[in-house]
Amino acid sequence: MPISLRPPSRRSAVAPFLAMDVLSAANALEAAGRRILHMEVGEPGAPTPRAIREAAIASLQGGRIAYTEALGWRPLRERIARHYGERHGIEVDPARVAVTTGSSGGFNLTFLAAFDAGDRVAIAAPGYPAYANILRALDLEVVELRTRAEDRHAITPELVEAAHSEKPLAGLIVASPANPTGTMMTPNALATLIAATEELGIRFISDEIYHGLVYDGVAATALATSQEAFVINSFSKYYCMTGWRIGWMVVPETMVRAVERLGQNLYISAPDLSQKAALAAFETTDELERIKDGYAANRRLLLDRLPAIGFDEFFPVDGAFYVYASVRRFTNDSGEFARRMLNEAGVAATPGMDFDPTGGDAYIRFSFAGSTKDIDEASRRLADWLR
Amino acid sequence: MPISLRPPSRRSAVAPFLAMDVLSAANALEAAGRRILHMEVGEPGAPTPRAIREAAIASLQGGRIAYTEALGWRPLRERIARHYGERHGIEVDPARVAVTTGSSGGFNLTFLAAFDAGDRVAIAAPGYPAYANILRALDLEVVELRTRAEDRHAITPELVEAAHSEKPLAGLIVASPANPTGTMMTPNALATLIAATEELGIRFISDEIYHGLVYDGVAATALATSQEAFVINSFSKYYCMTGWRIGWMVVPETMVRAVERLGQNLYISAPDLSQKAALAAFETTDELERIKDGYAANRRLLLDRLPAIGFDEFFPVDGAFYVYASVRRFTNDSGEFARRMLNEAGVAATPGMDFDPTGGDAYIRFSFAGSTKDIDEASRRLADWLR
Repeated sequence: MPISLRPPSRRSAVAPFLAMDVLSAANALEAAGRRILHMEVGEPGAPTPRAIREAAIASLQGGRIAYTEALGWRPLRERIARHYGERHGIEVDPARVAVTTGSSGGFNLTFLAAFDAGDRVAIAAPGYPAYANILRALDLEVVELRTRAEDRHAITPELVEAAHSEKPLAGLIVASPANPTGTMMTPNALATLIAATEELGIRFISDEIYHGLVYDGVAATALATSQEAFVINSFSKYYCMTGWRIGWMVVPETMVRAVERLGQNLYISAPDLSQKAALAAFETTDELERIKDGYAANRRLLLDRLPAIGFDEFFPVDGAFYVYASVRRFTNDSGEFARRMLNEAGVAATPGMDFDPTGGDAYIRFSFAGSTKDIDEASRRLADWLR
Repeated sequence: MPISLRPPSRRSAVAPFLAMDVLSAANALEAAGRRILHMEVGEPGAPTPRAIREAAIASLQGGRIAYTEALGWRPLRERIARHYGERHGIEVDPARVAVTTGSSGGFNLTFLAAFDAGDRVAIAAPGYPAYANILRALDLEVVELRTRAEDRHAITPELVEAAHSEKPLAGLIVASPANPTGTMMTPNALATLIAATEELGIRFISDEIYHGLVYDGVAATALATSQEAFVINSFSKYYCMTGWRIGWMVVPETMVRAVERLGQNLYISAPDLSQKAALAAFETTDELERIKDGYAANRRLLLDRLPAIGFDEFFPVDGAFYVYASVRRFTNDSGEFARRMLNEAGVAATPGMDFDPTGGDAYIRFSFAGSTKDIDEASRRLADWLR
């Protein structure tokens, strides 16, 4: 076969990340002069706190931006470990902390370190699309567990046991608070689920990247229950550092060297400047809590107005910065709906297909991480457009 | 099986990147107060050029550091495309340029986009260890082609044809200039190899990250011969931006969307700040050429002194910043030799096992990307230590 006819690999036939495709389309409209209100990407509208940026500037003036050790710059690993003491009263050995290139890097390293081709890994539907797409690209089998309203859209031990009894699971990924739904598990429900999962020999992966962004209740860390869970976190969301591509993991002790070897080869290290800057992130709580107050205001505004506009069915928004709303009363094709909404109303949001290939046609995800002014204007535009 | 007994995956049992392990050990000695001369990591000793750092500072003062589109920030993609016109007189469509999280990101995306589990991909031995380790972590079969001194340690069409006739190859990776050897292919040899490879339906992957660092001869790009090759490059080496984790690829047209989908899911985007800074990199040629003059001086110093010290057999150093030298006259275990050299002489270098599991026991790689002062002191320490 001539090389020009060789198609892309089968494993690359993963779904696109629609939120990023909507972002591209929105950027193209903006380049053509349109004013677009961005509610498509899960990204804080606020700039990174000043003290974090100043730490980066100091590092740039100092000169050398170099590779760090693959598991990360030691002072940052130590500071992250200390954070668990401060926030959760839990002691974490810095040797178990791995600094990663965003939580994206954390997921990739976790899946490669813990699972072999063909292993079955369960995720929630609806859920973050990259879980399934990374798993498939790595030749892992994705098992979707459909959550139910009566469980507040959380995965339950029963759902896990049912899937495991069909054919053994190797892993389970749980996000709390969750994307796209914003729902959060109680500390008790999380602990029970972890215990049940580990009892079955299933590796628990706890996505805690929306910790800190909670409007109601308390976000527990899996580390309170288990030393065998992979705990994945990020500076992107609460700390407003998306574009820095910097996150971290706490890894089971027996997995540290595997993660280090894979990290050395696949990433060399996380971005140095982002690591230096992130060290300052833990000291910017005042500014970050003010930003969070803005999200809380946005959330109230949307929960107040969306029902009147016609988005009268959505998931409980306990945390994160998303409203996952039904568009069933308008359409059976939320992809087409989102395209028209972008082009006609200038409001960018992400179709539910991104998060749920079987049920997402009836949903759309609004991110409310922007400014209250923009969210206000978006809700007015939507009301006009849908009238 | 209790979860605590579940071992790391088989696919994670890749070799460590020894250069990074040596770096860790060297850092530990430095933390204990020793002065270590670093020749272990392939990393410029010079800081990133001032104009690049100032572009980053301007971006930080501007405020928002955010996700970019997965294929990269458009002005940077356009600037990279223009670079091929300036440097090589070749027109490249910016739509084929993908900005990556270092060349590491480029290799990972290329392998996932082009190959499926079980595919055979050929590499040179000795060669860059992460090729084999990433390939294996992704369930690809690594085929080592042992290069020969009479071919100046370049892969030849005959070597490829022989391996392909045993069992078909899906891909071939070639670096020129190469790591760890520093040898470079002539433009004619490269063009002939690409043509022969593509004739067999084998995807050619051209690692061009040491372009710009050539002491003798001309480094050709695969784009001069083929529009079907994956061309991988980086800002790390010539542009002195290792810690920024920023690189690029030029991708065959039919592969762009596969690379974009994988990038959206596995990386979201390359670091924003690094992308903004990299745009300035192409305008810092004067400073970069002065830095390269320093490498040239280091190279002359080492080629002059190493034989007298006892390292009298090494590969031709046409480009990059490495000397891959035989230690056969001292030892049959270059790993133990490197450990003793670090601990006793305070000179860090990387054992050849990193680059060649079957023949590397007799070799050690010295990086000469540091300051001439340090290289001078290292050569004196080595002479004393080996006396």
